[in-house]
Amino acid sequence: MKKKLYALLLAAALPLGAAAQSITRLNPTNWWVGMKHNSVQLLVYGPQAGTLAYSVNYPGVKLVKTNTVENPNYAFLDLVIAPTAKPGQVKLVGSKGTQTVTQNWELKVRDNAPKGQGVTQADFIYLAMPDRFANGDPSNDKFADMADPNLDRANPFYRHGGDLQGAAQRLGYLKDLGVTAVWFTPVIENDQGLTNEAGTMRAAYHGYGFTDHYNVDRRLGGNVAYKAFVQQAHAQGLKVVQDAVYNHVGNHHWFVQDLPMKSWLHQWPAYTNTSYRQQPITDPHAAQIDRKVTLDGWFVPFLPDLNQQNPYVANFLIQHALWSVETFGVDAWRIDTYMYNDQPFMNRCNAALLAEYPRIHIFGESAVTSVVDQAYYVKNKIDFPFKSNQPGGLDFVLEGGMLAGLKEVGTPAATGWDNGAQRVYQALAQDAVYQAPEKLVTFLDNHDHNRFLSEVGEDLDRYKIGLTWLLTTRGIPSMYYGTEILMKNFKNPTDAEVRKDFPGGWPGDPHNKFTAAGRTPQENEAFGFVQKLAQYRKSHPVLSSGKLMQYLPENGLYVFFRYDATGTVLVATNTTDKPATLPTARFSERLSGFSKARNVLTGETLSSLATLQLPAKTALVLELGK
Amino acid sequence: MKKKLYALLLAAALPLGAAAQSITRLNPTNWWVGMKHNSVQLLVYGPQAGTLAYSVNYPGVKLVKTNTVENPNYAFLDLVIAPTAKPGQVKLVGSKGTQTVTQNWELKVRDNAPKGQGVTQADFIYLAMPDRFANGDPSNDKFADMADPNLDRANPFYRHGGDLQGAAQRLGYLKDLGVTAVWFTPVIENDQGLTNEAGTMRAAYHGYGFTDHYNVDRRLGGNVAYKAFVQQAHAQGLKVVQDAVYNHVGNHHWFVQDLPMKSWLHQWPAYTNTSYRQQPITDPHAAQIDRKVTLDGWFVPFLPDLNQQNPYVANFLIQHALWSVETFGVDAWRIDTYMYNDQPFMNRCNAALLAEYPRIHIFGESAVTSVVDQAYYVKNKIDFPFKSNQPGGLDFVLEGGMLAGLKEVGTPAATGWDNGAQRVYQALAQDAVYQAPEKLVTFLDNHDHNRFLSEVGEDLDRYKIGLTWLLTTRGIPSMYYGTEILMKNFKNPTDAEVRKDFPGGWPGDPHNKFTAAGRTPQENEAFGFVQKLAQYRKSHPVLSSGKLMQYLPENGLYVFFRYDATGTVLVATNTTDKPATLPTARFSERLSGFSKARNVLTGETLSSLATLQLPAKTALVLELGK
Repeated sequence: MKKKLYALLLAAALPLGAAAQSITRLNPTNWWVGMKHNSVQLLVYGPQAGTLAYSVNYPGVKLVKTNTVENPNYAFLDLVIAPTAKPGQVKLVGSKGTQTVTQNWELKVRDNAPKGQGVTQADFIYLAMPDRFANGDPSNDKFADMADPNLDRANPFYRHGGDLQGAAQRLGYLKDLGVTAVWFTPVIENDQGLTNEAGTMRAAYHGYGFTDHYNVDRRLGGNVAYKAFVQQAHAQGLKVVQDAVYNHVGNHHWFVQDLPMKSWLHQWPAYTNTSYRQQPITDPHAAQIDRKVTLDGWFVPFLPDLNQQNPYVANFLIQHALWSVETFGVDAWRIDTYMYNDQPFMNRCNAALLAEYPRIHIFGESAVTSVVDQAYYVKNKIDFPFKSNQPGGLDFVLEGGMLAGLKEVGTPAATGWDNGAQRVYQALAQDAVYQAPEKLVTFLDNHDHNRFLSEVGEDLDRYKIGLTWLLTTRGIPSMYYGTEILMKNFKNPTDAEVRKDFPGGWPGDPHNKFTAAGRTPQENEAFGFVQKLAQYRKSHPVLSSGKLMQYLPENGLYVFFRYDATGTVLVATNTTDKPATLPTARFSERLSGFSKARNVLTGETLSSLATLQLPAKTALVLELGK
Repeated sequence: MKKKLYALLLAAALPLGAAAQSITRLNPTNWWVGMKHNSVQLLVYGPQAGTLAYSVNYPGVKLVKTNTVENPNYAFLDLVIAPTAKPGQVKLVGSKGTQTVTQNWELKVRDNAPKGQGVTQADFIYLAMPDRFANGDPSNDKFADMADPNLDRANPFYRHGGDLQGAAQRLGYLKDLGVTAVWFTPVIENDQGLTNEAGTMRAAYHGYGFTDHYNVDRRLGGNVAYKAFVQQAHAQGLKVVQDAVYNHVGNHHWFVQDLPMKSWLHQWPAYTNTSYRQQPITDPHAAQIDRKVTLDGWFVPFLPDLNQQNPYVANFLIQHALWSVETFGVDAWRIDTYMYNDQPFMNRCNAALLAEYPRIHIFGESAVTSVVDQAYYVKNKIDFPFKSNQPGGLDFVLEGGMLAGLKEVGTPAATGWDNGAQRVYQALAQDAVYQAPEKLVTFLDNHDHNRFLSEVGEDLDRYKIGLTWLLTTRGIPSMYYGTEILMKNFKNPTDAEVRKDFPGGWPGDPHNKFTAAGRTPQENEAFGFVQKLAQYRKSHPVLSSGKLMQYLPENGLYVFFRYDATGTVLVATNTTDKPATLPTARFSERLSGFSKARNVLTGETLSSLATLQLPAKTALVLELGK
């Protein structure tokens, strides 16, 4: 792998003699007037593009510096765009001797469409893989000129044809379910092949190996379909979360095929994988080599690791982030493999996004197992040598607590000293390490984990308790597609097992589970359960802006409250396999002033709060009344 | 229990009519001139002592205020002792009408004996229970006038007769072993009975139920023997750690038998035990009642819980701490059940000790399971609403990691993702939460836990690895008595199983394991192993002042270094059941400049460091050389 990359770089560096210079790419592909970020480093690429002398003659646009690098096919132009600059085509002139190359680069006017609206606890995020969710345009399913020209829904590694148009057609379904935001695994072009050099199958449909930052994958519908999707989502009151990847790109990325410079990537004498270990980053006793392997080791051999300490790489990625939000109007920014990135770079990138879009939410994936490590990657209250500015993050610690606890629901372990609901309680009890625990994005599974229903032993009671916790405790809840229709599976033998096509997303599917008629009674029960809680959450701000108070679980019974001036909701979970009667005197700090309640899930009214009757393996959600 | 306490309080409050007033107790029993702490609140106790008007006529001693409380048998005199005051007998005069009561209270001159010397990483602490260690004076084994007049070494609940004189006679043994500090479970009088009201057996030999703060238990030799012990220890270069208990006292404590006021103790409408739960204290979402139960609930029914928010209680405890260090000359201060105390009180108390004895070390017992909670009780780097000033603490998190990891040594789990040495590595990797992790006191077991040898399945290899880690990694190591002679047992059926008499500590014992001749070959092997490491540690400052660098364990092999200008020590542990050859290129950050090594345990010389040969289930300790 590494050997091949070197070879490409050297080939590019060969003198091309009298070959004509030309410009084949400009990144970013355009910019806007009136952006806070008005110092743009324009990547100019083409045969011998780095050998040209550049000039710009456009009012309000100044070429401050032309940077050349190891590979003569690149130039990096430092442009400053004055607040007075007008929209239009900036003509870039490159000259060498008598030769002149010109290329237009557009300065657009910013549109007024909503963008960077953020997601908060008031939202409910739905995570889907666009290739596996719904196929709205069979004409874009495959392209013979792409590295993977295949389509085969029966093959777990192949593309299945899902696309943004298909997803857009299901916005009504999502809205009806109570979803308020859609997060797709990355939509950017992944023009990657299906096998590595050794012939091993590896998929690219997941989207985490970009090959051209400025193109949404054609098979998903391209930039046009993505922009249309966001507009349609916004029109229906839904937000869109973009999945960003800074740590690596696909090995077929055009700039990897012709590296600007050796230090563009993390280079190792021999291929070195990341250790996937969190500890060397936060450990005050760590060795430098362990830190380096975690950070600079490659995620997998076919995803070259970007060196974000290289200022050209950093500028490229930051500008692409801003460009994406401005172009497509997305509202929040999920960052893949957050912990493997250079953290000072992440802070710069986050700061740039927040400066331009103050309400945007940013939440990274740091798949760690301790709250100390999880805190490190968000705004926290620990005096680490490095201070993260990330507003949110995915709450892996709470996921771990919920899953382990739910697996014990209904077993003797449910009442164990540190078991059952204690695991959830204890995870939340460490929230003192975060500046804003409520900005963490909570989840029960995702595209990289076993499906939630399978994790809890296909036990519907545990499933309902888990979803109740997810939709009522602190944090911004997210749910993986298909959970609402009881999609299940373990990752064995491949990840594709947990990334099955949503039934009904394809023309001719035997069952259409986007409709009640296409779902089994049990699936409708599940759908209705999620819907009831999600719609309740949407219409009751106490579940989004209210504080959390949790009581020490006793005898397998876990009680917590969300409360504010608009109301109080009590969530009482019986994790045992026997009904329980729970006296409420202990909860007087929150129950005081309330005398009755409405069971949010059943509609039943409780005329006394002296004791609560808790059925076995059940979470009650009670809206308190006076 | 609670009912009885109330009754006593009310009885004391009954008007005693013309009964003569008298003073039977003054606490502290004396003070000193030239103390920083020169505002002393003197507790005066005796029949109707609170009904007297007090005066003091002594140069430099001013009675600022006489405080009376609910119980007329108490007065609390606020005294200020000027820097100019001379040693002598301060005459206290209490008068009421024509009656006058006088009582002398001594202001002593401070001696020059060492005190508050502190313990650091240069120390090796030996924890013993004085009743179970050695009997030097059979004349003090039992007293007919004490609540428990029994002596029976065959009975786990009874006193066994060990005492301070016996321990003093074994100082040579301890010094020979490499111990530098002795920590006894509390020596203060525990004049408690052997059964509770329900007739259930409960022991008091452990010392955690004080009945008179100002008397060391007669059965241990009293104040005289304690002071002599400290002096003899100091003479041999050993330090003494005192075990302090602020949270509770014995229910037979004299002031519990006649409470000064209701709020002296944490009072509950019905008996309420602490939940033993750490979370409500640090959880930002906790309910007040859960915090209160953790803190103010009683540890057990026969140990009344002191209310340290009562300023009289706080003053009493702080002054007793200072008095103890000044009187006996102890060097460090271990605090029992630290997390159950009022933390602002603990800060005041710690500050008073540190102001008077700047080098003293203070380390509390907070038996928690998370680093976040452990950090809360020491000087930390987390922005908790409460900031502890405690310099040290017992490292329960590392104990948990070491034990769980050692149990996996030699099993397939040793190479598990988060198992074996990973547990130790991961515990230490979270040291960023502490201001001074090296001031934590480390341990493998104690008087409340299963004995270390039994915890690791009586496996001598695991035992040696554990002791190697304990004696070479960061922190102040402590070891529970008898570990060096392979004492074992689980706590089942009672705690006494892990608190057996040290063989040879009693006249006529069939084996004297204080001598090599009395030990089996295997016991001598264990003793020699501990001794070798302890003596090496004592003579090699790198193991006490050196930094720690630890490498990510790979394949069950865990390598860490201690290093400073005085030298570098490498500790390499093979936790698998097969020998391993470990290339060392990865460790170049620490190995650079070294070419050979000496095996500290075998004396063997390694002439090359290119690879390390690691026998199965073994920790190598290598002193590096150039």
